[in-house]
Amino acid sequence: MPLTKDQQAEIDSAREQKHETRRVTVPALEEILYKALPVLDHGFVRVIDYMGDDAAIVQAARVSYGRGTKKVREDAGLIRYLMRHRHTTPFEMCEIKYHVKLPVFVARQWIRHRTANVNEYSARYSILDREFYIPAPQHLAAQSTVNRQGRGDVLEGVEAERVLALLKDDAQRNYDHYVEMLNEREDGSVIDEGKSGLARELARMNLTLNVYTQWYWKTDLHNLFHFLSLRADAHAQYEIRAYSEVMLETTKRWVPAAHEAFMDYRMGGFALSAKALEAVKRMLAGETVTAESAGMSPREWRELMSALGR
Amino acid sequence: MPLTKDQQAEIDSAREQKHETRRVTVPALEEILYKALPVLDHGFVRVIDYMGDDAAIVQAARVSYGRGTKKVREDAGLIRYLMRHRHTTPFEMCEIKYHVKLPVFVARQWIRHRTANVNEYSARYSILDREFYIPAPQHLAAQSTVNRQGRGDVLEGVEAERVLALLKDDAQRNYDHYVEMLNEREDGSVIDEGKSGLARELARMNLTLNVYTQWYWKTDLHNLFHFLSLRADAHAQYEIRAYSEVMLETTKRWVPAAHEAFMDYRMGGFALSAKALEAVKRMLAGETVTAESAGMSPREWRELMSALGR
Amino acid sequence: MPLTKDQQAEIDSAREQKHETRRVTVPALEEILYKALPVLDHGFVRVIDYMGDDAAIVQAARVSYGRGTKKVREDAGLIRYLMRHRHTTPFEMCEIKYHVKLPVFVARQWIRHRTANVNEYSARYSILDREFYIPAPQHLAAQSTVNRQGRGDVLEGVEAERVLALLKDDAQRNYDHYVEMLNEREDGSVIDEGKSGLARELARMNLTLNVYTQWYWKTDLHNLFHFLSLRADAHAQYEIRAYSEVMLETTKRWVPAAHEAFMDYRMGGFALSAKALEAVKRMLAGETVTAESAGMSPREWRELMSALGR
Amino acid sequence: MPLTKDQQAEIDSAREQKHETRRVTVPALEEILYKALPVLDHGFVRVIDYMGDDAAIVQAARVSYGRGTKKVREDAGLIRYLMRHRHTTPFEMCEIKYHVKLPVFVARQWIRHRTANVNEYSARYSILDREFYIPAPQHLAAQSTVNRQGRGDVLEGVEAERVLALLKDDAQRNYDHYVEMLNEREDGSVIDEGKSGLARELARMNLTLNVYTQWYWKTDLHNLFHFLSLRADAHAQYEIRAYSEVMLETTKRWVPAAHEAFMDYRMGGFALSAKALEAVKRMLAGETVTAESAGMSPREWRELMSALGR
Repeated sequence: MPLTKDQQAEIDSAREQKHETRRVTVPALEEILYKALPVLDHGFVRVIDYMGDDAAIVQAARVSYGRGTKKVREDAGLIRYLMRHRHTTPFEMCEIKYHVKLPVFVARQWIRHRTANVNEYSARYSILDREFYIPAPQHLAAQSTVNRQGRGDVLEGVEAERVLALLKDDAQRNYDHYVEMLNEREDGSVIDEGKSGLARELARMNLTLNVYTQWYWKTDLHNLFHFLSLRADAHAQYEIRAYSEVMLETTKRWVPAAHEAFMDYRMGGFALSAKALEAVKRMLAGETVTAESAGMSPREWRELMSALGR
Repeated sequence: MPLTKDQQAEIDSAREQKHETRRVTVPALEEILYKALPVLDHGFVRVIDYMGDDAAIVQAARVSYGRGTKKVREDAGLIRYLMRHRHTTPFEMCEIKYHVKLPVFVARQWIRHRTANVNEYSARYSILDREFYIPAPQHLAAQSTVNRQGRGDVLEGVEAERVLALLKDDAQRNYDHYVEMLNEREDGSVIDEGKSGLARELARMNLTLNVYTQWYWKTDLHNLFHFLSLRADAHAQYEIRAYSEVMLETTKRWVPAAHEAFMDYRMGGFALSAKALEAVKRMLAGETVTAESAGMSPREWRELMSALGR
Repeated sequence: MPLTKDQQAEIDSAREQKHETRRVTVPALEEILYKALPVLDHGFVRVIDYMGDDAAIVQAARVSYGRGTKKVREDAGLIRYLMRHRHTTPFEMCEIKYHVKLPVFVARQWIRHRTANVNEYSARYSILDREFYIPAPQHLAAQSTVNRQGRGDVLEGVEAERVLALLKDDAQRNYDHYVEMLNEREDGSVIDEGKSGLARELARMNLTLNVYTQWYWKTDLHNLFHFLSLRADAHAQYEIRAYSEVMLETTKRWVPAAHEAFMDYRMGGFALSAKALEAVKRMLAGETVTAESAGMSPREWRELMSALGR
Repeated sequence: MPLTKDQQAEIDSAREQKHETRRVTVPALEEILYKALPVLDHGFVRVIDYMGDDAAIVQAARVSYGRGTKKVREDAGLIRYLMRHRHTTPFEMCEIKYHVKLPVFVARQWIRHRTANVNEYSARYSILDREFYIPAPQHLAAQSTVNRQGRGDVLEGVEAERVLALLKDDAQRNYDHYVEMLNEREDGSVIDEGKSGLARELARMNLTLNVYTQWYWKTDLHNLFHFLSLRADAHAQYEIRAYSEVMLETTKRWVPAAHEAFMDYRMGGFALSAKALEAVKRMLAGETVTAESAGMSPREWRELMSALGR
């Protein structure tokens, strides 16, 4: 994550701001405000702004005139109750804004979450940086042989080398040609006065899907948790999971009670279907239950047994 | 807007908070933070929290690492450009949270704006206050005779008196019966030990639509402006317009440049249809144009002439 | 649910339509199309239009050129997989439109579901019908003594009679006064030529919250299921549950495979938290587990034990 | 737009369906149902399903029991009124579903419109086709010299040839390498038994942004019009405009009255700001107005003068 001197200076200057406010503040989150938290090889997540804290969830649930909070333990209990019973609206009363640098193919998964505000760096208007995601060797995984949508073992030896070389070379070459077609260097200077230069909005199409883009992304806590429940999950693609895990840590700083409830009820939990619930009841009664007698497909049964650690 | 002592104390205590923050702050908005700004006879609007300022719009539009702002004049120019060309996403980067007390029939119009977060006081769970909206004499309007969805002259004399008496009596009587059915006083004490008391979720149905409710309502600046463009408009019902006007003033404190652009491009503007544009061109060329020759309906033509001050 | 002759004639005429279409059709749903399915004392649910069927879910999941379906059993298996793993987007490819008549206090709960399209009958523009929801005796429940947001036993004897009398009288009287203030009969004729009549948008505020309104409500299958999972649930207020149950039946006709998966994975299931999952594992291993040793609150523990039928 | 035989057969078979329905149908739209309408070099738009017609807008606006329509002329008048006064909800009662094949960089612009349902072909799960967008010579535009976000003249001669060669070669080479890394041919057969093959979710990142993807995209008429007002506009990038224009034609078949109102009030209209409105009034009064005396920036003034044809 190579920030330029100018970028670092801008961040430092933002971090030096000190204002007085009547709003609620969260010192643990203020500590990392504006900082670029590294993700993947060139990416980052930066918390730019936030609204609310654990108490704001309680305040909204109680529609109170002041802070509306009672003892910390009671507040945490209410937050757990709201999370457990899917009373989601009080969590929407907290809002957070990130600045994220991420590869385009990750951005394409991310944007599918519609309940968020987004401002992306415009490649119609500006020239993209020469930065591409190249997986670290331990993330260069083979196609899974059991799951069409998953990864298997890590590639090794000659195959791994060849793959890395292709990814690097193709990204670089295509970027070189992007610059050539633009007829403009990254610093904005013209390369060949005899040429017109292809429109930026067209030239960008020559770039590879691992090129980095960046955006401001803002959402409320409920929708952020929903995003994280899907994207920090083991089934999510590693690259977006890497971002989710960093963001999950920011929620721990920001709203520790809500984070704990989320980890208990969403991330670490397991949803039993009606059939699975029936099977568990029978197992607890000492019966031997099979996929067949539970009326479940082999795959579903395996998922259940795995969750129950059997 | 009679706040109880406890409510006022909660508000005062919130206003006394002083925290240090690295986030952007808006002193003009901090001045009125938490204050109950009166609307109608018992309602209010309170700004509870906010995120961002004019510069945050610019920062998002530029996807910058720091504040991203240039000179104030350049920033205002960019904000005007974004507003004019309906580049709405940068305005979504500012967020505001209100606490609002409002009559139920106003709440029913308000809630139709879906892109917002809402936590309403629950009459399934709690007992509503004995407060109803009774129009001031100057707002007791007759049905419009030209617009099925509008108001005409103000009612006067005996008719006005009778209407006010009916509104007051019915609201009070129905509230008395609400309390009787609940078998519970507003302070929570039981009225008649020999009775069970009707469930709150049922008893509330006896209340009139002018009873006051309250909610936390949070939205982003783009959606707030959209709300205000419809609800601060002359065609909106007076009662919701009263709220919109107070909120419009809060945006003036919060994001003065965006507010100015909004007033110029949305509130004070007029959208010409293709036919109207053609008519204006012809008029500018000195032609005499009529509804017929413009291909417009009489109603549309009147609207255009009125906008052009003819 | 007293439909007028005109209304019934309009419905009958719509039902007589026969058109040829290349779109997919669902005969079991066509059977009840436009019919008013009664709910509560004066309400109804009518299916007005629909788009897609079970196969459309499969088609979208496969992004296929044609129907994209394989054997019925394979399709049902894929639908179960999508439901289980919360791949929600293919369910959004089915859409349904209802016409609903419902009391205002139910409408206020309903509208909180934002991802839907709504057109409500306008009481600014038109005069509402003289129809109110009065609970049947078996639904006249006392306030729950254990749950602040629930119902206890059914009211009986004198208290029940008194409550019913109050609800009926207040609704009728307030409606009488509504008409008087409007100075206009339900048929539109003027009552007293010497009066102006209060604006409709104001007069409506005298009505009680159990007055019936109506709307067109359109949503996609994913959001409909989400609505039903909350509103057909045992914790929902009876009155909105009554609507949800009728709508649930319409989904059974419309998309039987998706309906079955929904009943198994959502309605009949139970979400184990991380702690509950751990407790179940220990119980399956023969351990005796208590709320304390599971680290769960008494209330949470009771909910778990109840789900496990212990 | 080269459909395979199988794809064409699937489409033909879908088109041969004939079902009887009680729902409203639109014969002019049924005519083209399922057909692949070509866009760009390999893309298409296909209408897959629809709900409602012009009369459904009227029906929802009137919340009627039957069709709710009166004379065609009255209905069209009401639709114009709704469009003019931005009463948008009745337009949401019509829904349409498309199957679209489009380059990834166009998909990235398109997806920014959030109020729609989307199912995209998954390159985590499947192998993408060897198809890339290569601009036709007349669309190979230079960067605009006056608008940082626009196109200037068409490239010619050697520069054009070079650009086209680069675009073609890079896309092909990167696709070749994609296949090599996957170690799997497009027909699914393994290339080299001694290799594992890179995971699909990783290999795809080597593709260029002009590779074609496809999705099912479903939205309501109001949001479709909003999309078209931005994307069929002259300021939109040509490539997405090409799709918008084809979709605009489908709305003309589907809802001719709404389409006409949309063309008049949105596509062909011009929004006057408060300042512009004032300037027009003064010009109509015979005054000579300048940018300065109107209080407008030179750019804004040029835009106004251009709209007024001066």
